[in-house]
Amino acid sequence: MRTQIKDILVIPMTSEGLHFIGDIYIRDGIIEAVGSGIKAPGPVDEVVNGQGKVVIPGLVNAHTHLSMTLMRNYKDTCANLQDWLSEIFPIEDRLTEEDIYWGSMTGLAELVRSGCTSFADMYFKQWMTAQACKEAGVRGFLSLTLFGDEAETEDRLAIERLDEAIKGVDILRKDIAVHSIYTCTAGSYRLAAEWAKEHGSIVNTHLSETKKEMDDCLAQHGCLPAQWLEDTGFFDVPCYTAHGVWLQDSELDILRRHDVAVVHNPSSNCKLASGIAPVRHFMDSGLTIALGTDGASSNNNLSMLKEMRLVAMISTVSTLRVDALTPYKVLEMATLNGAKALRADDKIGTIEPGKDADLAILDMDRVNTCPVNDIFSALVFSLNEGNVSSVYVKGRKLMEDGQLLTINEAEVIRETRRCWKRLCEE
Amino acid sequence: MRTQIKDILVIPMTSEGLHFIGDIYIRDGIIEAVGSGIKAPGPVDEVVNGQGKVVIPGLVNAHTHLSMTLMRNYKDTCANLQDWLSEIFPIEDRLTEEDIYWGSMTGLAELVRSGCTSFADMYFKQWMTAQACKEAGVRGFLSLTLFGDEAETEDRLAIERLDEAIKGVDILRKDIAVHSIYTCTAGSYRLAAEWAKEHGSIVNTHLSETKKEMDDCLAQHGCLPAQWLEDTGFFDVPCYTAHGVWLQDSELDILRRHDVAVVHNPSSNCKLASGIAPVRHFMDSGLTIALGTDGASSNNNLSMLKEMRLVAMISTVSTLRVDALTPYKVLEMATLNGAKALRADDKIGTIEPGKDADLAILDMDRVNTCPVNDIFSALVFSLNEGNVSSVYVKGRKLMEDGQLLTINEAEVIRETRRCWKRLCEE
Repeated sequence: MRTQIKDILVIPMTSEGLHFIGDIYIRDGIIEAVGSGIKAPGPVDEVVNGQGKVVIPGLVNAHTHLSMTLMRNYKDTCANLQDWLSEIFPIEDRLTEEDIYWGSMTGLAELVRSGCTSFADMYFKQWMTAQACKEAGVRGFLSLTLFGDEAETEDRLAIERLDEAIKGVDILRKDIAVHSIYTCTAGSYRLAAEWAKEHGSIVNTHLSETKKEMDDCLAQHGCLPAQWLEDTGFFDVPCYTAHGVWLQDSELDILRRHDVAVVHNPSSNCKLASGIAPVRHFMDSGLTIALGTDGASSNNNLSMLKEMRLVAMISTVSTLRVDALTPYKVLEMATLNGAKALRADDKIGTIEPGKDADLAILDMDRVNTCPVNDIFSALVFSLNEGNVSSVYVKGRKLMEDGQLLTINEAEVIRETRRCWKRLCEE
Repeated sequence: MRTQIKDILVIPMTSEGLHFIGDIYIRDGIIEAVGSGIKAPGPVDEVVNGQGKVVIPGLVNAHTHLSMTLMRNYKDTCANLQDWLSEIFPIEDRLTEEDIYWGSMTGLAELVRSGCTSFADMYFKQWMTAQACKEAGVRGFLSLTLFGDEAETEDRLAIERLDEAIKGVDILRKDIAVHSIYTCTAGSYRLAAEWAKEHGSIVNTHLSETKKEMDDCLAQHGCLPAQWLEDTGFFDVPCYTAHGVWLQDSELDILRRHDVAVVHNPSSNCKLASGIAPVRHFMDSGLTIALGTDGASSNNNLSMLKEMRLVAMISTVSTLRVDALTPYKVLEMATLNGAKALRADDKIGTIEPGKDADLAILDMDRVNTCPVNDIFSALVFSLNEGNVSSVYVKGRKLMEDGQLLTINEAEVIRETRRCWKRLCEE
């Protein structure tokens, strides 16, 4: 099966500012050729007219808790992260497999509608999220998540169930997560690293999200969070961390030494009053900085378009430098850097031959993108979800001309509401 | 002609947190009755089913430069406001009536698509924007804008042409603007106030947008910008000002004394690295704080939905207080406070009997608003332009089920591009 996307403005994200009108050839889910004025490598089964449209690598949401869509706009005006978590945790204890499935489906629909093709998920009962991903066709990096004291039998069973759920599905991967240094022990972090080695997985955790986390770590352990984590051996396996708002320079050195990426979550950090991460400074320090939405309950969306716009806005105003983060760099955070953070840049994150065809096609013939002028500014500042026209994951079409093809939205909305109603009444 | 909007979740914005499922009766463009379980005041000609939907007062964009949509994403990575203006001003000198008309039409389409029914415009050749408003049916507060040394004959002619264009159109009003203290003289401000008195108009200006504006004023005049403006007599007529990022406490006293409102433009202030206005502090000081998009060339949208989300985000993170600005207060900035700033709260800004039927109906049956939970959080944080379903201005339906009824979008996009292409080639 060979598809040609024809006469489209290609933003390959392989080189600063590069964009050209050309064709993309996809064969059996893999990008075979990309360029301007190139010839078909062989017979074409399907031609997609890309005139007036733009294609970018599918956006990579490098940190979320997908099925927390259930708790969207729920008690979200708490004073801070800790107070809010105390509202959220009791509900999470009662989530059933069905809740996780429908919460995930709502999240997947929202991801696809905003041009996102991959997400890294830290949550529970991941085999149900895996099930939703298989049906919807969205690429998932699904973390078995340790919480509290070292792992229990339940966690071992969860690994088996997740392994079973993703077996043979090449767009799903199992990662190992530990929730945070303030909810877990050093033993949990050591065990996660061991399991990751055993399973060939990579690890992730929340890190330095709030000043309180940093202050408490200093008070309890006499060192900064990244130092404490390094001492557990957690960074001895490939790792990405979420937030990093309060990372100090000595911690940036530790992260760079272990090639640990930081996933920035601007909406969540603003909304929970955690702070503004100095993203440009992190980049200048040589770290890979990706972008994520965090859960819909602290955002309250799963739209990478909103995250791109927000990080551009707050990086500029917090540094009072218009060039703190160019639109190209922002788009790179949301594509290639996400792929790098997840150690998946051999497969995704750019549009180039050999990579999987994870693509978002954008319709710029809308009033909010008229005229386009600078294409990178248009993508970061002017776009909204209505511009997202078609979405592919490994060549499979998940959305076409604004219609979802693999998810029944009306059913998803109805079932998600039913689950949430039951949870509220319990 | 009487319309009933039935079984809809009404957010009247008349009292903190108030919302109820009920009906709205509109007669000849005016809201006749609103409530839960109320009886029709008389025979109904049209019934609109509002089940599963939400109705809010049409959003009020209290500061923009509508036809700057033409310059969207154009040279928008300049180092600061002054450098960027030096790119923009030469283009503005060449704008024809046709450019203003199509640029305005693109802007109006974008306003309606994002639930906005009123806007306050500071720009040139306003009679052409008036023409676009009449056709599109959007409520406009159109400022004749003085720029440079005192007004010239051209400005007097512009007043006449604007008066002619809005004659008998009850959704259009003429205001008088002076661009800024750094582009205009005290004479211009004095003349604007005189003209406003003569015409019964209200005035507006950019004020304290950047630190440079404040510093230069101190250096040149030995006083802060609001003090300098007060001395010109500009505040002796009803006035609203845009930005106010750098307003000092002594200036807040001046503004309060003259009942001068401040229109906050979060995207523009972030994007141009002007700074974060301490909105909550302004409110605590007793000022009316409204919300605006500024021009699309420094935003790069005209979506009040994006402004609501952004002001909530930056107010929280810049104060590190989650309660700095509740979602209700944010929605109030975008509705009632806008109406108050523009001295139009006798007609718009809330849903209550006697006011004009300027309404935005939102469809919450979409994945990004599933589930809704707290309705005010949902409106400020979760909404996107796709939720905007129907829009009314003074009872006239401008959009229904996501389709614009008064604007031909394809034509608007084509003509706007044509104008812009010509401007770039000149």
